[in-house]
Amino acid sequence: MSLNPLLIQSSTGDCKIHMQSLHDFDLWLPNGVTSVLVFRDNKIPEHCSTPLQATCEERGIPFKMENLQGGEGLKDPKGWQNIIEVMGQASLDRAGRVVVMGGGSLGDAVGFAASVWHRGTPWLAIPTTLLAMVDAHIGGKTAVHQGGVKNRIGSFHLPEQVIVDRSLLATLPLEERRQGWAELIKAAWLSDTPLLHQLENDADAISEDLIPSPEVLRSAMSVKVSIVNEDLHESGRREILNLGHTLAHALEMEAIRNGSFLPHGSAVSIGMVFSARLAKECGVGSDEHVPRLIQLLQKVGLPTNMGPLDIDQVLKALHSDKKTRGGQLRWVLPVNPGNVIVDTVESSRVRRVLENLERDS
Amino acid sequence: MSLNPLLIQSSTGDCKIHMQSLHDFDLWLPNGVTSVLVFRDNKIPEHCSTPLQATCEERGIPFKMENLQGGEGLKDPKGWQNIIEVMGQASLDRAGRVVVMGGGSLGDAVGFAASVWHRGTPWLAIPTTLLAMVDAHIGGKTAVHQGGVKNRIGSFHLPEQVIVDRSLLATLPLEERRQGWAELIKAAWLSDTPLLHQLENDADAISEDLIPSPEVLRSAMSVKVSIVNEDLHESGRREILNLGHTLAHALEMEAIRNGSFLPHGSAVSIGMVFSARLAKECGVGSDEHVPRLIQLLQKVGLPTNMGPLDIDQVLKALHSDKKTRGGQLRWVLPVNPGNVIVDTVESSRVRRVLENLERDS
Repeated sequence: MSLNPLLIQSSTGDCKIHMQSLHDFDLWLPNGVTSVLVFRDNKIPEHCSTPLQATCEERGIPFKMENLQGGEGLKDPKGWQNIIEVMGQASLDRAGRVVVMGGGSLGDAVGFAASVWHRGTPWLAIPTTLLAMVDAHIGGKTAVHQGGVKNRIGSFHLPEQVIVDRSLLATLPLEERRQGWAELIKAAWLSDTPLLHQLENDADAISEDLIPSPEVLRSAMSVKVSIVNEDLHESGRREILNLGHTLAHALEMEAIRNGSFLPHGSAVSIGMVFSARLAKECGVGSDEHVPRLIQLLQKVGLPTNMGPLDIDQVLKALHSDKKTRGGQLRWVLPVNPGNVIVDTVESSRVRRVLENLERDS
Repeated sequence: MSLNPLLIQSSTGDCKIHMQSLHDFDLWLPNGVTSVLVFRDNKIPEHCSTPLQATCEERGIPFKMENLQGGEGLKDPKGWQNIIEVMGQASLDRAGRVVVMGGGSLGDAVGFAASVWHRGTPWLAIPTTLLAMVDAHIGGKTAVHQGGVKNRIGSFHLPEQVIVDRSLLATLPLEERRQGWAELIKAAWLSDTPLLHQLENDADAISEDLIPSPEVLRSAMSVKVSIVNEDLHESGRREILNLGHTLAHALEMEAIRNGSFLPHGSAVSIGMVFSARLAKECGVGSDEHVPRLIQLLQKVGLPTNMGPLDIDQVLKALHSDKKTRGGQLRWVLPVNPGNVIVDTVESSRVRRVLENLERDS
């Protein structure tokens, strides 16, 4: 693999994304840092954070580590405000660094807290889940829940460095890895690189341990980096990364309302199938792509059918979504692999496809 | 007066500051805005917001107004989260605009809420207090309280436009205007323009109604704009704007702890006198400046003596302040008008000057 980091460029400071071993942590902790505060998912084996502590000890930098239970609860007001409390207790100042060692929920909650601590404290991201490696920790979008609404508030706050150590994937349960494949397949569908073909060819091998090869991992990360570089603040092009997410967020909210839980990757998987069907309904998507997408998602064991749900409630949840402009819900519609359009869709069509999705897939 | 707006330049979008009548609101509301949500201090007479509503009605833009009680309570978690709730109820989306019509606390709380709503929703500021005109609404720093700590979290979120209508000053109580003079005198002390001399010459006339002339107002605003332009994200030069504020925040926190309240301008006034004495103690300030500063502050009726306070508690509050770097508290020390230095100071010196301040001023 190339050792060149991927780069997200920003007027307020670039973000470098390294595919390297955590043992080289010393290379990425900037000089002049006065303290390091690590937030670690308590599911990560302890030895994984040893190189971080060793680097700080060698350099004489005060080091603190807080173990957190990953998951949506971290993004509730109590969760992220507790992170702020820990930052206060650690006397973290503007020359300190926050390090996140975990998945998407840690990145969202700690990244948000870092963005409002001293009006923006630099952070380093160490994604430990596949989902965080190919999506959540890349691009600087943070979000937390507020007033019972998922991801209601947030910020753009790019990490200074992202260190992607693929060996961490093996420390997590298979189910956790499976969730990441939804974003990886999304990246493949959005790109016009050979990534989609490679996934289709390798599907049998992949489905065994659900650990992508270094090449596939880097390709998927590159897709996201390239889209983010075109539109850091999501005023246009970046919107296409919401493929599958508009319905996914509504399904996740609806699951919470019912006292159950739908993992993000599963929700995105169902959402992508829905988008492909909606594209067909709108006359912009072709017949062949829906089964092709379903086949790939099913190969890695992701759901493609939303099961029995209250469609009126799903529609209600859809309309409280952030992804509106002038009150209109915008959908990312896959036309061909590598080609999506973003548009509004009549609500009668959305309802019709929802009704069919429940029965069909 | 020149009609040219003052300009704060930022890589994420400039901020234009107009000294104009609110009747020209139509000129500053950008085209393409899909909705307008105004947060108004309920002390502002109703007719002041008429031009805003009229502009929206003429253009067919949905308009909503929420009246808020200004003050520190708005910056408590309940306060700013209620603002988020109002944004949700108004279905404010990324093409909408938030308008703040009020003083510093509204700017801080609503500005913060706008910065995390859709990861940054554009806002327009209409400062109605002298303090907000010369300081709070200029520069994009927002802050709210968290876990009982004042201004613990915040963001940099420049308003798109600031409309400074000097006629609004007459609608507010004299005491409210008095508070603004602390920041105005601070600006004069930081600049090497003729502003300080003008204030000293006009002090008798000023002390009558405490309304600055348009020239003085614009000069004070220009001082802040010029410093902010040199260092938008407070990584260096902007720190000098904290003149008087290091002690001020500690005094405000200490007052709250005692169940009382110290207005921000009064706290800054005491803090500036303290800084001038500390500069002298450190051998960088000259003898003549302390009485000169005290005379000007007293002319507008601001306090220069902190009264009986628990010095140990004040020192404790000082060290929980944001303005530290590597755990060291940094002080803005006035050398001469137009010349300050920022440095750490031994805590024994800080204590000695605090003890003398209590007795002397």
